[in-house]
This record gives sequence, C-alpha cells and structure tokens, in this order.
Amino acid sequence: MKILGVDLGDRSYPIYIGAGLLGRSDLLQPLIQGRQVMIVSNETVAPLYLQALQAALHDCQVESVILPDGEQFKTLMVWNTIFDALLEARFDRGCIVLALGGGVVGDMAGFAAASYQRGVGFIQIPTTLLAQVDSSVGGKTGVNHALGKNMIGAFYQPQCVIADTRVLSTLDDRQLRAGIAEVIKYGLIRDREFFTWLEDNIPALLARDEVALAYAIEHSCQNKAEIVAADEHESGVRALLNLGHTFGHAIETGMGYGCWLHGEAVAAGMCMAADLSHRLHRLDDEALARCLSLVERAGLPVMAPESLSVECLLELMAVDKKVQGGRIRLVLLDAIGQARVDGGYDPALLRETLMLMRA
Amino acid sequence: MKILGVDLGDRSYPIYIGAGLLGRSDLLQPLIQGRQVMIVSNETVAPLYLQALQAALHDCQVESVILPDGEQFKTLMVWNTIFDALLEARFDRGCIVLALGGGVVGDMAGFAAASYQRGVGFIQIPTTLLAQVDSSVGGKTGVNHALGKNMIGAFYQPQCVIADTRVLSTLDDRQLRAGIAEVIKYGLIRDREFFTWLEDNIPALLARDEVALAYAIEHSCQNKAEIVAADEHESGVRALLNLGHTFGHAIETGMGYGCWLHGEAVAAGMCMAADLSHRLHRLDDEALARCLSLVERAGLPVMAPESLSVECLLELMAVDKKVQGGRIRLVLLDAIGQARVDGGYDPALLRETLMLMRA
Repeated sequence: MKILGVDLGDRSYPIYIGAGLLGRSDLLQPLIQGRQVMIVSNETVAPLYLQALQAALHDCQVESVILPDGEQFKTLMVWNTIFDALLEARFDRGCIVLALGGGVVGDMAGFAAASYQRGVGFIQIPTTLLAQVDSSVGGKTGVNHALGKNMIGAFYQPQCVIADTRVLSTLDDRQLRAGIAEVIKYGLIRDREFFTWLEDNIPALLARDEVALAYAIEHSCQNKAEIVAADEHESGVRALLNLGHTFGHAIETGMGYGCWLHGEAVAAGMCMAADLSHRLHRLDDEALARCLSLVERAGLPVMAPESLSVECLLELMAVDKKVQGGRIRLVLLDAIGQARVDGGYDPALLRETLMLMRA
Repeated sequence: MKILGVDLGDRSYPIYIGAGLLGRSDLLQPLIQGRQVMIVSNETVAPLYLQALQAALHDCQVESVILPDGEQFKTLMVWNTIFDALLEARFDRGCIVLALGGGVVGDMAGFAAASYQRGVGFIQIPTTLLAQVDSSVGGKTGVNHALGKNMIGAFYQPQCVIADTRVLSTLDDRQLRAGIAEVIKYGLIRDREFFTWLEDNIPALLARDEVALAYAIEHSCQNKAEIVAADEHESGVRALLNLGHTFGHAIETGMGYGCWLHGEAVAAGMCMAADLSHRLHRLDDEALARCLSLVERAGLPVMAPESLSVECLLELMAVDKKVQGGRIRLVLLDAIGQARVDGGYDPALLRETLMLMRA
C-alpha cells in the first residue's frame, strides 16, 4: 500500500493506494467515531462491492442509498434522495457519508456531506480510474444544472481517500479510457517526464497491467495533491487542472449529460486546447502532434462532435467558472508539461479551433 | 447609524443598523467589485423595496429573482430557481448574491451564494425584525427537507449585514411579534439585564417605537455577534441560540412549513424549555412565570398546538441537529440569562412538558 498526503493544515488527509483496500476495516474504523455510516453508491457498483464494504463496517450502523448510474443523474433531484436516506435513518451530525463509486457518486455524496446538517464527515472510495486519479482528491463536490456543469457545489475535503486498484478489474473499457484522459492531463500541464512515461506505457495501461496502473494512479494523485495543497479554492494554479475542461464541459452539456463520458469530453477538450495553443504559436508542431497522438492511442476522441455548432459551443463555454468579466479564460499549453490560464488570446483563433476540431 | 462587528478573522464583517440604510450605495459599492449583483427577494418585499435598492446599485449589472413568500417555499426546488437566474444572466464567480427579505430569503440566498460555482459573494439586507436580530447574522444558511427543518445547508458568512430599521414600518404585526420572540431569546440565554429591559419595553416595541426597536436590534445583534465569534460552527456555546428551537422546529414541521411562523414556534418552544427546566428544579417559580408572562405579553403563543400529539412531537424532535447517539439534547434554563445544553434530563419529565404545554 502506498500512502500519499494532501497537505491542508488541519484538514489534511491521506490517500491510500493499493490492491484489496476496500475491505480494510483498519483504515476506516479510526475515522468513524459516530458509528453511523451512509454508503452512497450506484446501481452498477453496489452489486459488485457494497457487501464487502459493509462487512468491513460490521460494528457500525450502516445504511446505503443506491443512485442511478450516469452523469445525467447528477442533479439536485437525485441528490435530495441522499437526504431522504439520511433523515429516514435519523443520522445525526456525527455521521459519515461514504462515497463508493465513480466521479458522479463522489461529487454528489461529497456535496451531501458538506450540506447535511451543514456538514458531516466524508470518505471517498473511488471505483473508477477517473475518480481514483482525479475527482476523489481535492474536495470539489457538486451537481450539474441544466445550463452548466458542476455549477452548484462546495469545496469540501474528505477525511481520506481509499483507492483500491483491484476494483479496476471490473471497470469497462470505455470507463478505463475515460480515466486515462485525466492521467494524460497531469503530464500535459506539469509533468513532462510522466507524459513521456505515458507514451511508452499506454498499451500496458489499456491492457490493465497492474504495475502500470498503480504507477499512473500514484503519479496522478501526487500531482493533484501538490496542486490542491498549493491552491485549495482555485484562486491560482489549481485552474490548470481544468485543461480541456471548458471545451469538455461544453461538449457534455451540449450533447446531454451522460452521452459523452466526462473523460472523453476532456480528452477532446485537451486536444482543442493544444490546437488553439498551436495556432497562437505557443505550442510547436511536434508537441501538438505528441498530444493528439497519445490521446488517440488511448482510444479517446481528439475532436468535438460535429453536431455541436461553433455558436453552440461558444455559448456553452461562456458559462464556465473561469469566465471573468464576460471573457472566456482557457488553460493553454506552452509546451508538454507547461500550461497557463489565459484570456488574452485572439477570439478569431478560438473560432478556428472550434470550426476545425469537430468530427 | 450604528456599526457592530462580527469578529471571524479574515471573514469578519460589519453589521450596519440605522434608519434609511437601504438606499446607501456608499455601504454597498465597496463590496461589489465584479459589478454583477443578483438580488434575491420575495413577492411581498420586492414591490416595496426592490426599486430603491436597484437605484443604489445603478452602476452595476443588477438582476433579480423573486421567490414566493413563506417558509413552505424554503425548498430545494425553489432554491434552484436562484441558479436558473444566475446562469441565465451568465453571472461569473465574481458576482454578489444580495438577500433582500426575511429569514427565508436570507437562508436560501445565502445557501445559493455558498453553492453557486462553489461560492460567490453574499450580502444580507434583512427586512423583517426576526432577520435583523437573528437569522441574517452568523452565516447559517440552508433549506428545509420534508423530514426536518434546515437540514440541508452551509455555514457561509455574508460580507456585510445592512439592517434598515425604517423598513420595519411595513412589517405586519404578526411578523413583528415573531421577531420579538428571538429578541426575548437573547435575554433568556445570556442577558438578564436585557430581559428586564424587555419586560419594561414590550409595549413600546409592539407600538413600533423607533428608539426602542433600534435598542432591541442593537442588543440582539451584539449578543449574536459575540456568540458567533466565539463558536462559528456550533461546537459549543452557539448551541444556546437554539433555545426553544428543538420544540419549535417540531411544531413548524408538524404543522406544515408556513403554518406557524418560525418566531411563533420558537416562542412556544422557549416556554416549553422553561417549563421542562422548572420540572427539573433548575428554574424557579418566579423565573418561569416571568418567561411565560413576557412571551404572552408579546402576543406570542406559550404552548404547542394541541393537534400535535406527544408522540408526533417526540418523533420530530428526534431529527434535531443537536441529537447525539439517539439522545435529544435540549437547551435548558438555569435562570433568566443563564442556559446550557443538556441531554441528561429525565425523559419522563420531557413527556410531561409535551403533554401539558399544548393548547
């Protein structure tokens, strides 16, 4: 087992990474003082892992709420069912909300933990690669609004993250690839060496080589933890984690939540950000080619769907959380491993990217 | 104008109290850097004061969302309409949410400010006595759930509170009395001198004497500010502000939100807490009589409605946020001006209170 730390003063917490951690009651028990645990999971994950987790919590009052699976259910309405369960079980302020699932489950459970009785304990047990390498770490929680992704939420840190690499064996290929998109992101924004490692090891990751997966998860979490520790509330460097996300959220919202997976939309979005960076003469030919090639080799889309018009994409991008004074600020690349937030680009070049990077 | 401070480190903020402050753009402008202001108000308050406030914000992009009036609308569904308005107006992370209304508006607007894009600016302009003396100060925000009051929310401090005493002239008598309930609360829990002042000045307050109202608001806010500064997240002394609230929330939820005003339910709840304290031989005969008498003279209920059974009340009280390990902890009185949180009382005496304090 590998232990990483997210350093946030009195809200610091560990990330445990390893095979077979799901049933490790020794990791969970010290955090559960109130003896009341609400497991939030979904229809896909619960049949596979709920029972093992319940067994590890045998001496607590354990209840569960099973959400429908998919980004289209990350709504206030579905979120409210978590409160139904908490209140029906008479859970008090000393209870723990435990997320067992992917990013959607983690985001909703975390926002419910932040909001139930104005804040209760929270533990993340991510079961997708995307959640293990990205969404479970850093405290971003929330739900979608019909007009914009993740527009309602809270910064709320978990008390620990338990990434059991063994659960990835039941992940379907499409979900695995979606997770690799966020792994590639860390290489692009700040870790050139990791990007090179990924170029060499994409086949191993796609073949679910356990050693390669563990290495990718550790390096991703290490990068994430460093950024979150430096800028918890995204007033600076944390915004770099949004590489490809302004484009990506527009694709997800425009296509209807759940149609494209988040990681797929981010993959295309990263390529679009790279393309725009290239048009702005910041990213050279070779770096652009390496970016597009790695995303493609990971079996991920490099372009937005043709069905979304340039105008439609622009309109959806205008509700991004990085917008300031009406200006769409984007994460752009200066090189592989070097990114910055910029709102001072030529809008005509953004239109070119949106026009040409659709397929 | 009187200025009080809520001392919370880098989240400290002023409370301005005085006549005619609503239109004072000099108080508002320094806080509005992003130039985008979403006024959240309700159908009753907006026709009276929205225009004057908009005029004070003439050089900003001002939008408004008008909620239906009443506790029964403090729901996730109505709350979501604030996000509709924010997103339709394309408001960014630099925007301000401004609550213009009573406690319901302030709670919902504050929770929306806490949650929109994971947190934007927030200003309170309370327009009821209850909101001016209590709910606008201290950062408790949230909405109700069908199974429990204020069960979904956040601690989120405003950047300032502007209490314009002149707006109380349009408050109806029932709302005025409901506000007085929370004023009496401060006397009961920690300010014996203020309680005596209230015994002398209840007629002046009911007659809307401006000097008396200003005195009551200042002393209430001063008490509230001191408690919040000492214990922002209610891990200790802040729980005393819940005197009467466990009983009161049960009445509100049991009767259906909006049937009893919050202040009315709290008034009855305070008398029930005093009655139980008396049965426990903590509060003497005279103090109990003074408490009941003052509440009655304020035109407020001293008992719960007979239609709610003891069992029903007990069940509703069991979802209170102060419950710990299944035990209903209550704020009880040792004397006028002295309170404590206690879960070690004889449950049979609580049943007696619930049985007898209904009318």
